[in-house]
Amino acid sequence: MSTWLTNAWYVAGWDSDIDSAPLARTICGVPMLFYRKLDRSVVALRDACPHRLLPLSMGFKEGDSLRCKYHGLLIGPDGAALEMPLKDAPVNRRVCAEAYVTHERHRFVWVWIGDRDKADPALIPDLWPCSAEGWVFDGDYYHIACDYRLMIDNLMDLTHETYVHVGSIGQPEILEAPIATRVEGEDVYVTRWMPGVDAPPFWRSALGKEGAVDRWQVCRFLLPSAVMIDVGVAPVEAGATIEEHDSGVRGMVVDFMTPETENSHHYFWGMARNFDIDDVGLTARMKRQQGGVFAEDLAILEAQQKSIDDNPGLRLMAYEIDEGGVRSRQIITRAMKRESEGLVP
Amino acid sequence: MSTWLTNAWYVAGWDSDIDSAPLARTICGVPMLFYRKLDRSVVALRDACPHRLLPLSMGFKEGDSLRCKYHGLLIGPDGAALEMPLKDAPVNRRVCAEAYVTHERHRFVWVWIGDRDKADPALIPDLWPCSAEGWVFDGDYYHIACDYRLMIDNLMDLTHETYVHVGSIGQPEILEAPIATRVEGEDVYVTRWMPGVDAPPFWRSALGKEGAVDRWQVCRFLLPSAVMIDVGVAPVEAGATIEEHDSGVRGMVVDFMTPETENSHHYFWGMARNFDIDDVGLTARMKRQQGGVFAEDLAILEAQQKSIDDNPGLRLMAYEIDEGGVRSRQIITRAMKRESEGLVP
Amino acid sequence: MSTWLTNAWYVAGWDSDIDSAPLARTICGVPMLFYRKLDRSVVALRDACPHRLLPLSMGFKEGDSLRCKYHGLLIGPDGAALEMPLKDAPVNRRVCAEAYVTHERHRFVWVWIGDRDKADPALIPDLWPCSAEGWVFDGDYYHIACDYRLMIDNLMDLTHETYVHVGSIGQPEILEAPIATRVEGEDVYVTRWMPGVDAPPFWRSALGKEGAVDRWQVCRFLLPSAVMIDVGVAPVEAGATIEEHDSGVRGMVVDFMTPETENSHHYFWGMARNFDIDDVGLTARMKRQQGGVFAEDLAILEAQQKSIDDNPGLRLMAYEIDEGGVRSRQIITRAMKRESEGLVP
Repeated sequence: MSTWLTNAWYVAGWDSDIDSAPLARTICGVPMLFYRKLDRSVVALRDACPHRLLPLSMGFKEGDSLRCKYHGLLIGPDGAALEMPLKDAPVNRRVCAEAYVTHERHRFVWVWIGDRDKADPALIPDLWPCSAEGWVFDGDYYHIACDYRLMIDNLMDLTHETYVHVGSIGQPEILEAPIATRVEGEDVYVTRWMPGVDAPPFWRSALGKEGAVDRWQVCRFLLPSAVMIDVGVAPVEAGATIEEHDSGVRGMVVDFMTPETENSHHYFWGMARNFDIDDVGLTARMKRQQGGVFAEDLAILEAQQKSIDDNPGLRLMAYEIDEGGVRSRQIITRAMKRESEGLVP
Repeated sequence: MSTWLTNAWYVAGWDSDIDSAPLARTICGVPMLFYRKLDRSVVALRDACPHRLLPLSMGFKEGDSLRCKYHGLLIGPDGAALEMPLKDAPVNRRVCAEAYVTHERHRFVWVWIGDRDKADPALIPDLWPCSAEGWVFDGDYYHIACDYRLMIDNLMDLTHETYVHVGSIGQPEILEAPIATRVEGEDVYVTRWMPGVDAPPFWRSALGKEGAVDRWQVCRFLLPSAVMIDVGVAPVEAGATIEEHDSGVRGMVVDFMTPETENSHHYFWGMARNFDIDDVGLTARMKRQQGGVFAEDLAILEAQQKSIDDNPGLRLMAYEIDEGGVRSRQIITRAMKRESEGLVP
Repeated sequence: MSTWLTNAWYVAGWDSDIDSAPLARTICGVPMLFYRKLDRSVVALRDACPHRLLPLSMGFKEGDSLRCKYHGLLIGPDGAALEMPLKDAPVNRRVCAEAYVTHERHRFVWVWIGDRDKADPALIPDLWPCSAEGWVFDGDYYHIACDYRLMIDNLMDLTHETYVHVGSIGQPEILEAPIATRVEGEDVYVTRWMPGVDAPPFWRSALGKEGAVDRWQVCRFLLPSAVMIDVGVAPVEAGATIEEHDSGVRGMVVDFMTPETENSHHYFWGMARNFDIDDVGLTARMKRQQGGVFAEDLAILEAQQKSIDDNPGLRLMAYEIDEGGVRSRQIITRAMKRESEGLVP
């Protein structure tokens, strides 16, 4: 019984993480390696030579193939052997490392860990701000020693900002605005609408003008484990609403949690924005600031996981603020149930 | 099946260990935190927020209460919620972190880990030399990676001094004096009486005179896991006996072993004395010397625990010198049996 | 179910490893200690005092005996108590640490871990080059965190040299010569005969002359877990054959793998040679070079073991080059089966 959906796309790495040299990374319990071919397409293989199981990521790249460092078995990008350990031995093409389907989109390399024939790129979560015209996007990666669902809980409830991020972005006002949680299809939304408020410094500078603004935060969960957070402000006179708010300045915090084991995950995070998109320095400053904020979450989440392990008799409780996380977990559980019944997820 | 008594008082810390900031310490398998209120009384709580289990010891003190660093749930000193994560949400007072009864006595903070209504301070082991008129007491703390009962064995048999403490306090003469072991109620005594001997330098200096002395060592075990060792000398002409020896100079080594897990414990140790009680420098020198001696025991006991784990087919054997430890363990086992039958321990 | 033969001799250490001070080393799952008596014969005991299980290797040597550092129990070289913890207590000779039969041969100290009465020195594997007239031998020791059988696989297949030792002794030509595997009794041979080739620099220098040579590599497995590799060259005109090749210069790589746990072993390695045997500097240089080469194997084998553990669904596969390892494992398994049926191994 795993805790994640199998027939799904997961982020294996940033487009910039994966190059011609093999990168070893365990995805959903499976040791994998990733590299780019000369045409820059991405190969994903089980990171174990089919011969004696030495990690192939320790091997030598030869063109688009990978030669095992132990006995020289040569594996092609489809995972099948091209040369056996004894050079002139006849090649058995059924000797192979399992190959996984990959796809590059939204600045990420995605890998499909389930049945190959179901790997439809249309199922990749629509993280549109990462690659949309008129937007700029950048971010980074943390390895976090906790169940990936604890990070979903974290991101679907922004009240934690006040306490966890007390030294950085926390603001008590956040707690005063009411939130609303709703489910649409397999997405979960937690919305917070703050009409006619003073813009905090960052947003005032982004907007480039003084005056009262309408401010919003919309957290959205998407299967199998993404959260996008739509944040921004618009001048009151623009008449923005929680449904329609393209008139001001917007940012999109984009998060993807890829399970590594039951108790650890790969956390890919970044921020897209639709203003000052050519200001490269601003992009770098925002990434650095966001990295500091998410390092605060990392410390909290790893302590939480350890406490869960150390207090086996205690259970997580959920109040109103946790509804976003609770609904997201329900959607994962339901999708896993459909999967276990052989239905399309 | 634990290896310790539950309805009992255990030392949580020195009176000086616990202050207004929370101290995290696992007692008998339970992650706990300890802090002092403004009136200096001590609060003990399960170290996990009832909401999402983040250790409360990471939180913010607010007066006598503790605010969780994750979502701001405010816990009062009785463990019950004072504010929910969402500031204006109605408070559910049944949301609480388990609170434990504490009591301060004999320079230690004690915690009761069993049923609250049985937490009678009269059951605190009578470590009287730690707080008696005419005596001075100080000591320190070691974390030791072994079953707490191995330390009881160690302290109830002082023949080990000759070998373990060969470089510090070990003296071959110790082995020549006969020992006697007896049980009185739930206490175990191991006595060694050395009449008409030369006083070793430390005791000669304490006594302040030359001449033959009667010397004694009396190890006493007290439930749930204390050992007090009465040591000293009296001039022969004072006519001291093993039962009555208040005429000379006395020290009391006081030891308390609080289980942390099955294979680790908190070791609180110190020495009380009834001579030169205003000599603060002597107190500090004795504590430093004792710390060095007990560090030698620490090395032995952790090696012994590892060897027990590495030799699963072998069993501890007991000879005459071990009778004190054997009887002490029997008393613990019997008390646990009574407890499991619902009787008062 | 262990993975090794019990009624067998294993190398406990180099003759130079074991001296009068106790050496602690776990052999086939048993914590043992080794030391030399005044007459230089070797004592092997279970490394746990029969009294309270403190490792005896922490104790004090007294003549040929060992006094426990905890309570002073004195153990003689046969493992039986000579003094009890309380000095004048009558000695119970049935109190003892298990003693193991040892034997010194071929520069190694051997220990028998099975039934004492079966410990026949004639069963010690015949590593003759380590002590033969006209040969010189030296080597060293590595602790390796993998199943000892992975090292047997490694040594019984030299094609790995090309890849693992690409930076040191690897040569592509090795792959071009055919190998032959055969079983003789309980030994396995993998032979490679390279007639009329150019000698590589090391062998040309050893031979001391130019010209075409016949070159050989003969890997031989011996129970319970030794591998000897006969390597060398002879001038073509000497008419050497794979069966008879004493005419040129020969080296013997000698390897012994002693299981420590199921997933770790003690690796004793060295090289004997029958040329320039008085050149002490050459001996030291060869040992240093060999140490560098085997450190490359160590890195591969520990990565392989980790990958085996991380990919529980995958199995090792065997091709033609692996036949030497496969046959060697079969011989171990068959001997273990005979042992489990009560037959002589």
